[in-house]
Amino acid sequence: MPRIPDIGKRRIVIIGGGFGGMKLAQSLKKLDVQVVLFDKHNHHTFQPLLYQVATSGLETGSIIYPLRKKFEGHKNFFFRYGEVIKISPEKNEIETSIGHLHYDYLVIATGAATNYYGMADIEKNAFPMKTIEDSIALRNRIIRNFENALLAESEELMNSFVDFVVVGGGPTGVEVAGALAELRSHVFPHDYKELNLKHMDIDLIEASPRLLNGMSDEAGEKAKQFLEDLGIRVHLNKSVKSYDGYTVTLNDNTRIISQTLIWAAGVAGAPIAGLKEEAVVRGNRYQVDEFNRVIGYDNIFAIGDVAAMITEDTPRGHPMVAQPAIQQGKHLAKNFQYILKSRPMKPFKYKDLGSMATIGRNRAVVDIGKFKMQGFLAWFVWMFVHLMALVGHRNRVLVFINWMWGYLSYDKSNRLIIGESGSHTLEIDKHRPEATI
Amino acid sequence: MPRIPDIGKRRIVIIGGGFGGMKLAQSLKKLDVQVVLFDKHNHHTFQPLLYQVATSGLETGSIIYPLRKKFEGHKNFFFRYGEVIKISPEKNEIETSIGHLHYDYLVIATGAATNYYGMADIEKNAFPMKTIEDSIALRNRIIRNFENALLAESEELMNSFVDFVVVGGGPTGVEVAGALAELRSHVFPHDYKELNLKHMDIDLIEASPRLLNGMSDEAGEKAKQFLEDLGIRVHLNKSVKSYDGYTVTLNDNTRIISQTLIWAAGVAGAPIAGLKEEAVVRGNRYQVDEFNRVIGYDNIFAIGDVAAMITEDTPRGHPMVAQPAIQQGKHLAKNFQYILKSRPMKPFKYKDLGSMATIGRNRAVVDIGKFKMQGFLAWFVWMFVHLMALVGHRNRVLVFINWMWGYLSYDKSNRLIIGESGSHTLEIDKHRPEATI
Repeated sequence: MPRIPDIGKRRIVIIGGGFGGMKLAQSLKKLDVQVVLFDKHNHHTFQPLLYQVATSGLETGSIIYPLRKKFEGHKNFFFRYGEVIKISPEKNEIETSIGHLHYDYLVIATGAATNYYGMADIEKNAFPMKTIEDSIALRNRIIRNFENALLAESEELMNSFVDFVVVGGGPTGVEVAGALAELRSHVFPHDYKELNLKHMDIDLIEASPRLLNGMSDEAGEKAKQFLEDLGIRVHLNKSVKSYDGYTVTLNDNTRIISQTLIWAAGVAGAPIAGLKEEAVVRGNRYQVDEFNRVIGYDNIFAIGDVAAMITEDTPRGHPMVAQPAIQQGKHLAKNFQYILKSRPMKPFKYKDLGSMATIGRNRAVVDIGKFKMQGFLAWFVWMFVHLMALVGHRNRVLVFINWMWGYLSYDKSNRLIIGESGSHTLEIDKHRPEATI
Repeated sequence: MPRIPDIGKRRIVIIGGGFGGMKLAQSLKKLDVQVVLFDKHNHHTFQPLLYQVATSGLETGSIIYPLRKKFEGHKNFFFRYGEVIKISPEKNEIETSIGHLHYDYLVIATGAATNYYGMADIEKNAFPMKTIEDSIALRNRIIRNFENALLAESEELMNSFVDFVVVGGGPTGVEVAGALAELRSHVFPHDYKELNLKHMDIDLIEASPRLLNGMSDEAGEKAKQFLEDLGIRVHLNKSVKSYDGYTVTLNDNTRIISQTLIWAAGVAGAPIAGLKEEAVVRGNRYQVDEFNRVIGYDNIFAIGDVAAMITEDTPRGHPMVAQPAIQQGKHLAKNFQYILKSRPMKPFKYKDLGSMATIGRNRAVVDIGKFKMQGFLAWFVWMFVHLMALVGHRNRVLVFINWMWGYLSYDKSNRLIIGESGSHTLEIDKHRPEATI
């Protein structure tokens, strides 16, 4: 039966087909090694656009891409669909849900997981946005909320359905809040004529004094203004203390009623069991040296969100976004080339290509080095960069058409509830044939 | 709180937003009535293309369409997302998962459900294809089978994953078998280089002596030839006696090993509790008169698959496909016009627009009255008709692009496993860290 053969070449095992792992595997194409890529999904996920799936703007299939398809032309490449459970560095082996495997070099590219900072009630009741499944669940919930609102028997209950609380003022939080405001302005008034959508409140909660930390002050301020123009209530210097699925309590004891809290307040690395405890540092990331080697190991590397390359310039490691992952993946492939030739590796240098966030149609903020822009042109740049970064020509075409269609029609066409037909789990969601509709 | 208001107009309640119910609701646009449409999904499903979602050819979002969006311009139209549990004709009320509602006229357009002919083992273990959720589950399974095949420890187990049994030689069975053969020829050899795809068998089982009953003999024969050209084993005059999820046993005691049996062997009407038993006839359909009135009721109608209009010409009612449903929906809207004007209703006359099925690229069979064609031109007609019949311009554009892309590249791009990450339920699907991969 087919097994991953021992072909007498060094085997590089990569865990995770996100931005870093995929780029690394691609860049190893011509190297004389065997590459094995593991992932819990059989597809790459373009995480920056998950919020558009959640808010009915894009189809699921247009932002994810089958990993096997990406590597069709690669010799000596093997994909395995499974979860890596444990690393056994003393045996140079990984244990996975589908068996164990020897490696010569291991690259951990497992990315990040949602960070609830230990708050179990929020983990239980909030909606995260890290996987395609998260986005589908959130989309289903948003649409179902409005169907439920039509049935609510008190104004408070009705509001609990149509009000949304977004926690976290980074790009994801800002973007999802903006997209909700667009649904409120352009889509839901057509779909739910019976509801007064003035009741639909969107609250964005950010613990620090500003939005879009990591971008310029101008970007943060302009983003706040754009959001407020769209009618979103921005709360700075506030954090969430508790959430029971109905009442959000902030640190100043303000209460907001909402059955939908979207948690975009933080991520932490997603390390795997088995390495020395000292290797995992703040933020649950592996501390790596300038060659992305995990501290204390010679043949184990980590790249992307799960890696913290702590240097004078980056005392907290690089930002947990796509660019460092992609650049580290590409760079590590070069270092593997040096390793094969028994030459010394070269240290990684991060090139900041800038950062950006969009708040809705015609509104975005972009920082590229000292160059900053906001508004329509920034929005255009945002779209172009995201289109080009998408994996696969077909996905680019589909997203482009969806965006043009949405722009011209002011519509978001994917307001679908899939996979939950007949299932009803919210407070109002019970069979109640006694009520009059 | 918002309720469906009593506006002093007659209320027509339609159960089901499929081909019939949606057409009826659209055609009632200008009538001076209140229309309430119920559905268990918040979207219309274009069922003829479900098989393409299941076989990775099309995205989910491109063949389903939000029902509310369809009726944006309609006054006096109300949609409710919920399940109708029971009809109380004596009170002119329906009981639903979200409450009860009075009707003046009720139209049952609930369509059909998969018919397992009472075989519980098949119902438990087979994959049906009636809803978008069915298609996603089947797609996930097909792709996962191949990931599992890479891990199988015996040839028999490996074959159980990559072999497929399709039961039912109607259009759905023929089309899904053809699409599986295309995956075998053009897609899986790239994705699963490690597997010998000569091992992938596709068996199509049909109980009658021919394929595509309801179409011409020529169409049936040509379809069989097309399928056999693609390497599909067509078994006529055979039926499935039992299936335990692994071994398919036919009526002649032949056994076929496969962990994936696709059940396209029959449908039955999906009536709702509450009407007189006599109203439900063979095939679980409501017997209706020539005005689509359910026998024994004055103000309850049934259209589409769930209605059997038994006449001399149609002793078994009309075929359970889209056209009778659409035509009856349109016709019933006219009859409601007459009812409002207190004029007599007109009897329904079915106009057979022909039927068709596709077997794969460049291969289809089309019967339009006495005009019959097979092959490339038929395939072109099939595509054109299905494109035009899709709901929504955007869906048409997306499906068109997907088809063109697929035609030129021989690719099926949606080979995605969504919503099952880490979940493993098949025989091989258990954590087995003791195995060597």
